[in-house]
Amino acid sequence: MSKVEDAEKKVKVIPLGGLEKIGMNITAFECDDSIIVVDCGLSFPDDEMLGIDLVIPDITYLKDNIDKVKGFIITHAHEDHIGALPYVLKEINVPVYSTKLTGAIIDNKLKEHDLLKRTKRKVIKYGHAINLGCFRIEFIRTNHSIADSAALAIYTPAGIIVHTGDFKIDYTPVFGSTIDLPRFAEIGKKGVLALMCDSTNAMRDGYTQSEKTVGTTLDGIFADNTSGRIIVATFASNVDRVQQIINSAQKYGRRVVIEGRSMVNIVNVAQELGYIKCKENTIIDIEQMGNYPDDQITIITTGSQGESMAALSRMASSIHRKIQIIPTDTVIFSSSPIPGNEKQVFKVINELSIKGAKVIFQDTHVSGHACAEEIKLMYTLVRPKYAIPVHGEFRHRMRQGELARSMGVDKENVFILASGDVLELSESSGAIVDKVPASEVYVDGLGVGDVGNIVLRDRQHLSENGLLIVVVTFEKHTNQILAGPDIVSRGFVYVREAEDLMEEAKSIVYDALQRCIDNNITDWSKIKNIVRDVLSEFLWKQIKRSPMILPIIMEV
Amino acid sequence: MSKVEDAEKKVKVIPLGGLEKIGMNITAFECDDSIIVVDCGLSFPDDEMLGIDLVIPDITYLKDNIDKVKGFIITHAHEDHIGALPYVLKEINVPVYSTKLTGAIIDNKLKEHDLLKRTKRKVIKYGHAINLGCFRIEFIRTNHSIADSAALAIYTPAGIIVHTGDFKIDYTPVFGSTIDLPRFAEIGKKGVLALMCDSTNAMRDGYTQSEKTVGTTLDGIFADNTSGRIIVATFASNVDRVQQIINSAQKYGRRVVIEGRSMVNIVNVAQELGYIKCKENTIIDIEQMGNYPDDQITIITTGSQGESMAALSRMASSIHRKIQIIPTDTVIFSSSPIPGNEKQVFKVINELSIKGAKVIFQDTHVSGHACAEEIKLMYTLVRPKYAIPVHGEFRHRMRQGELARSMGVDKENVFILASGDVLELSESSGAIVDKVPASEVYVDGLGVGDVGNIVLRDRQHLSENGLLIVVVTFEKHTNQILAGPDIVSRGFVYVREAEDLMEEAKSIVYDALQRCIDNNITDWSKIKNIVRDVLSEFLWKQIKRSPMILPIIMEV
Repeated sequence: MSKVEDAEKKVKVIPLGGLEKIGMNITAFECDDSIIVVDCGLSFPDDEMLGIDLVIPDITYLKDNIDKVKGFIITHAHEDHIGALPYVLKEINVPVYSTKLTGAIIDNKLKEHDLLKRTKRKVIKYGHAINLGCFRIEFIRTNHSIADSAALAIYTPAGIIVHTGDFKIDYTPVFGSTIDLPRFAEIGKKGVLALMCDSTNAMRDGYTQSEKTVGTTLDGIFADNTSGRIIVATFASNVDRVQQIINSAQKYGRRVVIEGRSMVNIVNVAQELGYIKCKENTIIDIEQMGNYPDDQITIITTGSQGESMAALSRMASSIHRKIQIIPTDTVIFSSSPIPGNEKQVFKVINELSIKGAKVIFQDTHVSGHACAEEIKLMYTLVRPKYAIPVHGEFRHRMRQGELARSMGVDKENVFILASGDVLELSESSGAIVDKVPASEVYVDGLGVGDVGNIVLRDRQHLSENGLLIVVVTFEKHTNQILAGPDIVSRGFVYVREAEDLMEEAKSIVYDALQRCIDNNITDWSKIKNIVRDVLSEFLWKQIKRSPMILPIIMEV
Repeated sequence: MSKVEDAEKKVKVIPLGGLEKIGMNITAFECDDSIIVVDCGLSFPDDEMLGIDLVIPDITYLKDNIDKVKGFIITHAHEDHIGALPYVLKEINVPVYSTKLTGAIIDNKLKEHDLLKRTKRKVIKYGHAINLGCFRIEFIRTNHSIADSAALAIYTPAGIIVHTGDFKIDYTPVFGSTIDLPRFAEIGKKGVLALMCDSTNAMRDGYTQSEKTVGTTLDGIFADNTSGRIIVATFASNVDRVQQIINSAQKYGRRVVIEGRSMVNIVNVAQELGYIKCKENTIIDIEQMGNYPDDQITIITTGSQGESMAALSRMASSIHRKIQIIPTDTVIFSSSPIPGNEKQVFKVINELSIKGAKVIFQDTHVSGHACAEEIKLMYTLVRPKYAIPVHGEFRHRMRQGELARSMGVDKENVFILASGDVLELSESSGAIVDKVPASEVYVDGLGVGDVGNIVLRDRQHLSENGLLIVVVTFEKHTNQILAGPDIVSRGFVYVREAEDLMEEAKSIVYDALQRCIDNNITDWSKIKNIVRDVLSEFLWKQIKRSPMILPIIMEV
């Protein structure tokens, strides 16, 4: 054998995002001259990312190796797995592979960004595989809170990597079949190099309940509340949940109104493709609502996370143009608040309660992610050499790491990665060998990446303290003050309450400028610094505040 | 009998805050020439109250009726019941009545604000009463998450009003005795006009667990984790919790370090007054920590809500000057996140996990508020004619209203009040008869009330979009442009990325100014509006953003 053939084959696993920050799931797999990328998610801005609309991954590494990149493999159609596609595909035009519903939802998104024509897309069925460069990728059926979710078996020259995507085990799913556990077992028997398993619920013991249990609960609520409208808020993408709400509505003789832009979009796609089934005339247009008595109406709406501009929030705060909340309404939150959204959800509940509506928000949701026992089952079937927990915060992935060790994975074979880590795996060894760029890219309006940390720091400063602008016009050469100093403030203090303060501030600046002139200080940046210093000292002493101070000098 | 004697006596109940906004508990009771005020809390700013430090109640009504105001009666020493006292006492100098620990914590607060000498304070024991004008107020022992909490029986000419303050029923309290249920029963037998009962946990069925159960859990954790330090974060004011942590530490041979400013303050007060007891030398100074091995150290710290500047958060992010987290540390969150704080708590947990610490944050906390069954017991004992649910969000008070009705209170005798409502009660009738000012007053630095909605709106705008300042100098009379237009931006876009944009913006403004000159437009506000319009239209078209635009005109 030649030396080359002798060399052990290696594969690189490179998470480009989604590890420090939930969402932004995107992982590159590299071997020889081939790179494939699993998922391409976005995340929503943290509180301190003021004014930012979206956060997308940094794909510098993919652009630098564009010749190798064979395409995106998408596990399912949630925003944290597909949301960044339109932004990323604008920069690197490669094919996208997914199951059917996932593909249809991606198509919708690409249409909005005018990218549909130029993007090659391909639908892959469960159990089928595709060859991309030196990789072969098989799609495996899973269960999750959106239909058509897939796990991936990635056959690499170095061995098989199983990526679960987001998953749970649902023995009684609403649509389709149970996760293909036998196939995981078969692949496990072949020998698996690494398992990349969903960690979201790793800290929860036991099993996640079947989606069907929600249907039973909903039936009970529909049976108990027969006198007015029933309004159900849930995630637009949870097609099975929508199906179950429709089922309950049909059972109790109600028509269904679909409300909220994303809800309408997804229900349309799901109906077209046969993922949602209902009797003709069950779903009615919102305009037809007046033709039916309230007790024959169900409204399925967005806004289950209390998002301020979603349909339910607009109903709650009386700014929805077509639906007014009345005391006979029953409102169901078929969801649980994502951490960070609790306050806004409770705000909407309070507003609905004030209007007299009955609000139900407990026991009407199950998670779409595997709990500890399901994760253990996955390890039992797949029996990987290496464990690379994915999805979830650091604490969740740490917990899965513990579970993996309890299932027999060697301690040094558990990798809790950071974004940008280049993990090189072979049958004999695994190690982080490099680091590639993997920062966060901010999207603000049409700008992608033009808002960075300096801009955010300024926004933070402005938001907490407001600003004072000091303008003065000097005469060229003589350096005498021709106009000003004028002080303009915004977001600082209600000026009518603080006239004296502002007058005093002005005279302090004037004195400082005069001292500069007297001392022949003509360097503008020096003058500006002096103005900034005297003014901020004065304001801190007077009212313990530190507005941004912006001296502007004009010269004529 | 004369006509006057014949007239039925009435009492007014006037919540001045705390109903729309959690915290800010302050309720005036008025009868003839007397007003007493129960509690004087502050609340913390909502996310949209940018830069605001605290929110305190509007006491216009008290100031307008200052001759009647006899004093503040404080139920317990939590910030949402005492926090606004220093601000309010500066405006109206009236006496403050409370139990011992409550009084000592208030004293600490007044000392910080240099108000101790001028404020009359009086300690009242459980079972004792005080006469203030036409009111007699009796303090009744309760249980809560801070020692020395009291309910109040307010004897008014119109009847008895029972105000529970924040309470729970703890049959096995850590310090002191069980809530004085027999006294509630006795007063109930006399006949009670109205019950103002804590609603915080009204939506939770069953009973709140005893504080002692946490001690048992803590003992178990101390028994299981014997090899490194144990760091416990909890609410500084939860003196009983601190006591139990000390108990566990002593049991397992550990010294205790108290860390975090408010923790140190309250533990000092509680120790002095005998509310915390421990062996000599159990509590050691942080500087002595090095003298003991890690497995003999417990640290009790602030930061259980993930507050960014609290001691635990500083340890987690490696900016604590004296304590570094190491992999053998066990960190216990003896608390549950207050809604809205989840994300920051999880952030701290992630940071601790990354450092290798073991984090325990479940089953180590019990609530200090009564659940539904306890509330029902209170109604059973007190048997009020009117129910006025207090404390908690609207949805919680609505739920207590339902519980009250289920306990026999007439539907029309349940009052879910809004702040500022004047509820007039007599034996024969109850009605909202008036509305008094009860807005929120913002504290920002030393400024109280000088930041209003306009300032906040500007801060919001600045925080999301940043600003562009356009400066131009005109020549007086001729109206020619002498200097500028210059454009300065902050928080808008990273300028080096957008040089072309800014250049184009400048030339667009220049053209607009020239058109003004050509058309003899000399009115500055008109010119500013034109500049604002052309610039915002340009920026929206180019990058879909709307920064604040601030034209400034100078004239020489």
